[in-house]
Formats: sequence, structure tokens, C-alpha cells
Amino acid sequence: MNFLEERIVKDGIVKEGNVLKVDSFLNHQMDIELFDQIGAEFKKRFADKNINKILTIEASGIGIACIVAKHFHVPVVFAKKTQSINLEGEMYVAEVESFTHKCKNQVIVAKKFLSEEDHVLIIDDFLANGCALQGLIQLVTEAGATVEGIGIVIEKGFQSGGRIIRNLGYPLESLAIVEAMDSETGEITFREQ
Amino acid sequence: MNFLEERIVKDGIVKEGNVLKVDSFLNHQMDIELFDQIGAEFKKRFADKNINKILTIEASGIGIACIVAKHFHVPVVFAKKTQSINLEGEMYVAEVESFTHKCKNQVIVAKKFLSEEDHVLIIDDFLANGCALQGLIQLVTEAGATVEGIGIVIEKGFQSGGRIIRNLGYPLESLAIVEAMDSETGEITFREQ
Repeated sequence: MNFLEERIVKDGIVKEGNVLKVDSFLNHQMDIELFDQIGAEFKKRFADKNINKILTIEASGIGIACIVAKHFHVPVVFAKKTQSINLEGEMYVAEVESFTHKCKNQVIVAKKFLSEEDHVLIIDDFLANGCALQGLIQLVTEAGATVEGIGIVIEKGFQSGGRIIRNLGYPLESLAIVEAMDSETGEITFREQ
Repeated sequence: MNFLEERIVKDGIVKEGNVLKVDSFLNHQMDIELFDQIGAEFKKRFADKNINKILTIEASGIGIACIVAKHFHVPVVFAKKTQSINLEGEMYVAEVESFTHKCKNQVIVAKKFLSEEDHVLIIDDFLANGCALQGLIQLVTEAGATVEGIGIVIEKGFQSGGRIIRNLGYPLESLAIVEAMDSETGEITFREQ
């Protein structure tokens, strides 16, 4: 097990319905020392990539993306899920809907912050059905920018998001891939990487 | 002018209705090197405080809070504005409404992440009428925790939020306080600190 898998086993809580609660260190309370380790690991995995911008999505992706960015020395842009009055000017808007209709969202970035000169690392905390991630890729593509890599903290390997993105040829690195969870015993099985 | 005021003058855009757009470096695209300077400055200003946790609010506070946290070596908790299915268990909920009814929000934190042992630094990007900040203070107080300090990146000094919070005796540090803005000329006047 790597450092993240160890932490998930220690502090993650498995709930019914394949819910993995990691809110004590990842997406409500945030362990910045852990985020720093995550940043170092992504820097290692994408060492050969020429990355000049990190793209993430509000809200829980932002903290991780910012600490990861310290390892790449690049700015972060976060996509918004709803149009705010502050987001004037031209925008890229991706409409994303999941097969199961469990998510239907707009993912929005101001055009001035994504262009064809950008080589983008997409960062997010979770990947399950991949709805949000598909929206982010759509935005990058629409801007004519390049997806150099996708870094996910926790992937639910038993849902389809990761497989689809890898099938499409995107360099996707998930630091922990959960293959199975048992809410009765609390046991978590990770994919060997 | 300090480093932040210089940056606001360089890249901030004054819009009608006292709107200051800083989305190219603060709250949509985020300049992580600038955030690092902001973190160092808050560490200096709150050097004598015993801080074990940073509290902020989604979404645009999160990135700044995480980089600031690297200077304090403490975890960050971000308050949510809406109840999500992932936020089960007991929660502190602050209801906040502005005098002008321009904001009416719930500010929510899981109880397990704020307790009477916590000495909290509140971090946010903007302070105007202080609606969100009042909610955060309410949460900390309800938890029996202590507000050791409040660090704001940009305060709109011509709105009442900052004055109210200082009148209540909270140690509030704003790195830039805008006294006036002119959308015709683009001129920005800062309060001498």
C-alpha cells in the first residue's frame, strides 16, 4: 500500500451504497501535509510532461490542486459549476449528464483562462462515473488546449469513469483505486498498481 | 503599496457597481506564488497567535486557505454553503442574512471538525458586508472554539463588514483595504495601513 492507501484504510469510513467518507483528511477537513505528498507524487508521475496550468473544479478539487501546483510552479484555474454574476465575458460551458442521470451539471471556465497554448494537468479528488471529469476535458478540448495528464486522488475502480477515460487514451493517474468496499466489515480492497 | 496592492492595481479591473474583478489571479485563475506571499504575510501578522486550524468557506477561500496553511502547518476546514449528501452526522449550521438582503445563506461545518480545543484562523478572499464571515464566526463560537484571527485578502473598506468585525474586537487583518474605486478611470484608492 502507498501512503494514500494507508491513510484511506486508517481514516476512511465505508458507508452503505459504496460511499467512502474521507472528509476528515480530503474533502471537508484537509490535511495539507498529505496534500503535499500527493503533489510530490503527481510531479513524479507526470515528470516528463510539459505542464503550464492546472485545471480543477469547485469545491473539493481546489485545495488539492493548489498544493499540487506548488510542485509544478504553475497557476490553477478552477471550473465553476454554476454561473455566477462575477463570471462575465465569454465562457466555455460544458454540459455533462451521466448515463444514470445521477449528475447533470454545467462546468464553466472563462475563455481568457484557457487557450490553445495551454498544456493542462487536470486534478480532482474523486473519480467515479467521471461526469465532472468529462466536462473538464470538454472545456480543455473546446479551448484548443492540450490535456497533458489527469491526476485523481481516489478512483472508484468499480465504476466506469476511469475505464472510459483510459480507453480514450488520456494519461490518467489515480493514486488510489478502490476495487471493492464492504460497509459491514469496513474492508477496502485496492487495485494493484 | 504592498505586493498585493501592486498586483491589484496591475491586474484588477474596476467595474460599475463597485465591483473589483481579480479573477485573473485570485478567485478563478489562482496565482499560487502570490498565494505563497499572502501566506507568509499572514504568518507574520499572526505570529504571536497559537493557531491549530484554519477555517474558510467554499469555493474561492479554499485555495488561499490551503497555501496559507502551509505556513502555519495546520489543517484546513472549509465550510459548505449548502447541505450535501456527504455531510451526514451532526453539523453546525449558521444562518446568515445581510441587512440589505443581498445574501441569505447557510454556512455549514461538521461538528467533528470544530471543537472547544480549536484555536482558529479564519481565512477568506473578500470582505464586503461580512455576511459569510459572520457565519464563520458564528460556527466557531457555537463550537466553543476560539477565533484567534481573521485574515482577509481584499477588504472593501467602503462597506460595513470590516468595521463591524473590528468593533466586535476580533483581530482582523486585511492585506489590502480598498477605500474607493472609479470604474471610469479604473483608479483604486487603498487605505493607509
